Amino acid sequence: MNAPIDPKKIEPVKVTTGSLPGSRKVYAEAAPDVRVPFREIALHESSGEPPFRVYDTSGPYSDEATRIDVHAGLARHRDTWVKRRAVEAYEGRAVKPEDDGNVGEAHRAREFSHRYPVYRAADGQPLTQLELARAGVVTEEMVYIANRENLGRTAALDRAKEALADGESFGASIPEFITPDFVRDEVARGRAIIPANVNHAELEPMIIGRNFLTKVNANIGNSAVSSSVEEEVEKMVWSIRWGADTVMDLSTGRNIHTTREWIIRNAPVPIGTVPIYQALEKVNGDPVKLDWEVYKDTLIEQCEQGVDYFTIHAGVRLRYVPLSAKRVTGIVSRGGSIMAKWCLAHHRESFLYERFDEICDIMRRYDVSFSLGDGLRPGSIADANDAAQFAELETLGELTKVAWAKGCQVMIEGPGHVPLHKIKVNVEKQLALCGEAPFYTLGPLVTDIAPGHDHITSAIGAAMIGWFGTAMLCYVTPKEHLGLPDRDDVKAGVIAYKIAAHAADLGKGHPAAQLRDNAISRARFEFRWEDQFNLGLDPEGSRAMHDETLPKDAHKAAHFCSMCGPKFCSMEITQQVRDYAATLNETPEMAAQSGMDEMSEKFKELGGQVYVDLKTTS
Amino acid sequence: MNAPIDPKKIEPVKVTTGSLPGSRKVYAEAAPDVRVPFREIALHESSGEPPFRVYDTSGPYSDEATRIDVHAGLARHRDTWVKRRAVEAYEGRAVKPEDDGNVGEAHRAREFSHRYPVYRAADGQPLTQLELARAGVVTEEMVYIANRENLGRTAALDRAKEALADGESFGASIPEFITPDFVRDEVARGRAIIPANVNHAELEPMIIGRNFLTKVNANIGNSAVSSSVEEEVEKMVWSIRWGADTVMDLSTGRNIHTTREWIIRNAPVPIGTVPIYQALEKVNGDPVKLDWEVYKDTLIEQCEQGVDYFTIHAGVRLRYVPLSAKRVTGIVSRGGSIMAKWCLAHHRESFLYERFDEICDIMRRYDVSFSLGDGLRPGSIADANDAAQFAELETLGELTKVAWAKGCQVMIEGPGHVPLHKIKVNVEKQLALCGEAPFYTLGPLVTDIAPGHDHITSAIGAAMIGWFGTAMLCYVTPKEHLGLPDRDDVKAGVIAYKIAAHAADLGKGHPAAQLRDNAISRARFEFRWEDQFNLGLDPEGSRAMHDETLPKDAHKAAHFCSMCGPKFCSMEITQQVRDYAATLNETPEMAAQSGMDEMSEKFKELGGQVYVDLKTTS
Repeated sequence: MNAPIDPKKIEPVKVTTGSLPGSRKVYAEAAPDVRVPFREIALHESSGEPPFRVYDTSGPYSDEATRIDVHAGLARHRDTWVKRRAVEAYEGRAVKPEDDGNVGEAHRAREFSHRYPVYRAADGQPLTQLELARAGVVTEEMVYIANRENLGRTAALDRAKEALADGESFGASIPEFITPDFVRDEVARGRAIIPANVNHAELEPMIIGRNFLTKVNANIGNSAVSSSVEEEVEKMVWSIRWGADTVMDLSTGRNIHTTREWIIRNAPVPIGTVPIYQALEKVNGDPVKLDWEVYKDTLIEQCEQGVDYFTIHAGVRLRYVPLSAKRVTGIVSRGGSIMAKWCLAHHRESFLYERFDEICDIMRRYDVSFSLGDGLRPGSIADANDAAQFAELETLGELTKVAWAKGCQVMIEGPGHVPLHKIKVNVEKQLALCGEAPFYTLGPLVTDIAPGHDHITSAIGAAMIGWFGTAMLCYVTPKEHLGLPDRDDVKAGVIAYKIAAHAADLGKGHPAAQLRDNAISRARFEFRWEDQFNLGLDPEGSRAMHDETLPKDAHKAAHFCSMCGPKFCSMEITQQVRDYAATLNETPEMAAQSGMDEMSEKFKELGGQVYVDLKTTS
Repeated sequence: MNAPIDPKKIEPVKVTTGSLPGSRKVYAEAAPDVRVPFREIALHESSGEPPFRVYDTSGPYSDEATRIDVHAGLARHRDTWVKRRAVEAYEGRAVKPEDDGNVGEAHRAREFSHRYPVYRAADGQPLTQLELARAGVVTEEMVYIANRENLGRTAALDRAKEALADGESFGASIPEFITPDFVRDEVARGRAIIPANVNHAELEPMIIGRNFLTKVNANIGNSAVSSSVEEEVEKMVWSIRWGADTVMDLSTGRNIHTTREWIIRNAPVPIGTVPIYQALEKVNGDPVKLDWEVYKDTLIEQCEQGVDYFTIHAGVRLRYVPLSAKRVTGIVSRGGSIMAKWCLAHHRESFLYERFDEICDIMRRYDVSFSLGDGLRPGSIADANDAAQFAELETLGELTKVAWAKGCQVMIEGPGHVPLHKIKVNVEKQLALCGEAPFYTLGPLVTDIAPGHDHITSAIGAAMIGWFGTAMLCYVTPKEHLGLPDRDDVKAGVIAYKIAAHAADLGKGHPAAQLRDNAISRARFEFRWEDQFNLGLDPEGSRAMHDETLPKDAHKAAHFCSMCGPKFCSMEITQQVRDYAATLNETPEMAAQSGMDEMSEKFKELGGQVYVDLKTTS
């Protein structure tokens, strides 16, 4: 339930801060005032390896050197970049009571402390990353992103060529090394987007496209049933701590505007929304009462706040609605069903479709990216890849071209619930129909039968569809179909999706992806337990699990794992095999052929026993 | 730690019993004294649907009508079948102190209450399911399995043809309906196995083959470091409750023999072991001291106890060992590294390879199936599909033909850690090299970077490899690489793998697979919350998650879910779309084209609002 918040209450909003275990924040100076954050994981000296650098979505919250004040919001570094462009500043739209669902005093959330001037493109001037890319401009965001995707490297990895040749990317064009101009070119071609509203100055830019690292989105948002502003800000901070690249605020009910303000002012990642949700609140939840004016007003409200991308279900056309009637689960998208009801009630074409040009004109001026919603996505295995779904996808392809002509960045949302054998065609059709605009899919869930475990049913589909070419994966938490995710659900969902995204990058042969697998596998093989925990996606969780069986610190260096115990360990033996092979003055292959008895002697000398006499375990 | 067990202690071993929520055990009489168990899930009367029947691995423990006494073991129904065959009964090998690792009085586990006569094939007589199948004999096990795989149906489903045509099975030959003779034929061809030791009379027969339902194995077993007999029996019962089709006892250390006796006497599923683990205990954990005599003695000991399949790493040949030296994680299989060390220490060919004929002769007489172990499986992404792995696979193919010639049933173990793009070739090579003998894979894990979440990294690979043709998936728990799984880990692992196996069956187009997805999706769409919980893989878990957000019982019938809240719900709207389309005297497609205004009128009449005025949530 939405606990009443006393506006006079003074205790500060608390969020999770501090570095991850064994990690510290570092920055690369990609250019003057372009400072790119990374996380460096320190490894045990016995490894002889330098700290391991990873892509870092967690923002200033994980930087011990930064003081976090959620009430003040994050530093607005990006402001200086935006000011250099052809923007005009103006006094934004005044907040209206209906923006927060006419919430009463008792339930009103605290207002955010600051209000900033609003920017938009000066009349007729190019401003979106797409427009600038086409004009040959390499923006600071592009420089930032190139450095970020390369993990700060200034040249291609030795293994890049080999890794790319070894992978299977299904026609993607992943480069050995990402230059700012490659970023520009991909954006100019519409094959990647940089969701970056000019009014989101707190943003650490990132890119979504199939020739870059596969990204993950986390959904948060209170509902009429539960949750509060505090919880939502913490959920955002918590989800990026575990690796979410973007966050969607799907709030409904009261305090939508204020909740969103708190989230954006504290968000280093792009924030996405579904404006129709708030528009619906403004007409008291009755889809039939929706109209262009209230929707347009909501778009401008959110453009001025700094939302980076909007899900817009403009592909739900009147004529497609009845195609869903025979489905097992009909229309499961909220936005989709809102528009379906509107279309039927008025027996008119969707105003989102009819007004699409005007929507583009608004979004272009703030550089808000489109996430063209799949309002008719299948909600069950039975409905996968049906006429309604693909009819809408065709319209999304048509709208993509319109948005591009208007200078807007576009990505396309995809399903949903899809069995293994029907996943690949979803990517193939999307790439063909939408001119390779980035695909952004929810899962897909590969079966309907596991409520409570749908982060797993969907991570399976997500890994595959990411491998086939989806640019960003929208996470699903264990609570899907059952309730609102809490902190633990958010973490479980994000980690399941970081697994899927990384698996996809490995499959595609991304030049740097396997470095982390190799590093953690070396740590595992050498019994560097701390390194294994810290190099993994869940340092605290994995350490806690290890300690359940072997709590003693002594074991952190023990040359055995709890699966085999101290008397025998396969990795210990393997180490001896390796030492042995290393003593041969020939290749292992040759040694294997030639049969020399002194080998076994030599082995006995150095082989010894695998007993590890650990008093602590007797 | 292995808690001392007082042999005089009298409180009984406790295991989990009782039916699952909304479920009851039913039996189909497939033939005289062939009684096949199923679970029937009752659905809410509003569904108008009969109880939903599912495959049931849980054994008598979930049958309210059966009294469970772990000390007495399960009823030995299969005894009557076996006695009809050409078997001889004899006084089994006496249990020796070393069988339990020479455990002292203080740590000795309680002995199991009964000892039964031991059966084996009468001299020169055919006994294995393979031998009988080749001879044209349809065994009771085959009749049982056909009925079980058909979920008790006596004819093909209407949708069978369509489902098979819709799926992609990569060359499998799944029939519309499974007859006992089809089972016999698949076993005779070596394309499926029925792991069923004649001394495991408590067994409820099942089959492993790619033209049948994809199966799941759960590993249990204490280690020198922790766990007790009680825990292991409960882990077995617990794992089959959630759907494990077979269970491997990987115990090491003390009380191995006694622990195994308790497990087998209480196991309705096939039990697998890795005999080299116990042989190693008999030589005090020093692989160098292993020899054929101690190994042979261990095989006979376990054949007599009723183990249904043995993992035997006979493919780890001397010449392959050095091929692992350059790996990132060398040899990660315990059995593989034991044999590798033995081969190097003596600089001799593996005695498992050299004595393979004799091993076949022993296993044939009890009908213990081979699970040819992949001792050189990759333990990291870096080592996937390398020379060592595929060299061993070739030898496993050679040994498969030897075992078949001897009349033994065979399946082949597979990796391990494999990235997405290298999974399919594993199945293709295995099918080609091993004459389509069933493939039994661990995962594979598609990345190394998520310790603590490897049930997910591996469920991704498992779903794919199962779809491609793996017959049984060996589960991985969240504790993989970190510690021994506890109850919760076992459940998490089994459910992740039931998801993977079911996703594979859907992908292959298994005739009946989608029925469960459709049933739960109908329940979801109609807000039959109880049915949704009970039709899922985790009734208690999903209900608990739902109740976290909406605890009140009233909500179990509420026409909204906590994601949208009471004011608006997409499924509610979809129901209106459906009602609307249903009122048209034409197809939805036609209606979509024709534009008649009275439609919207008609809609307004029956549409009404989607408000659900639920006081409980205000």
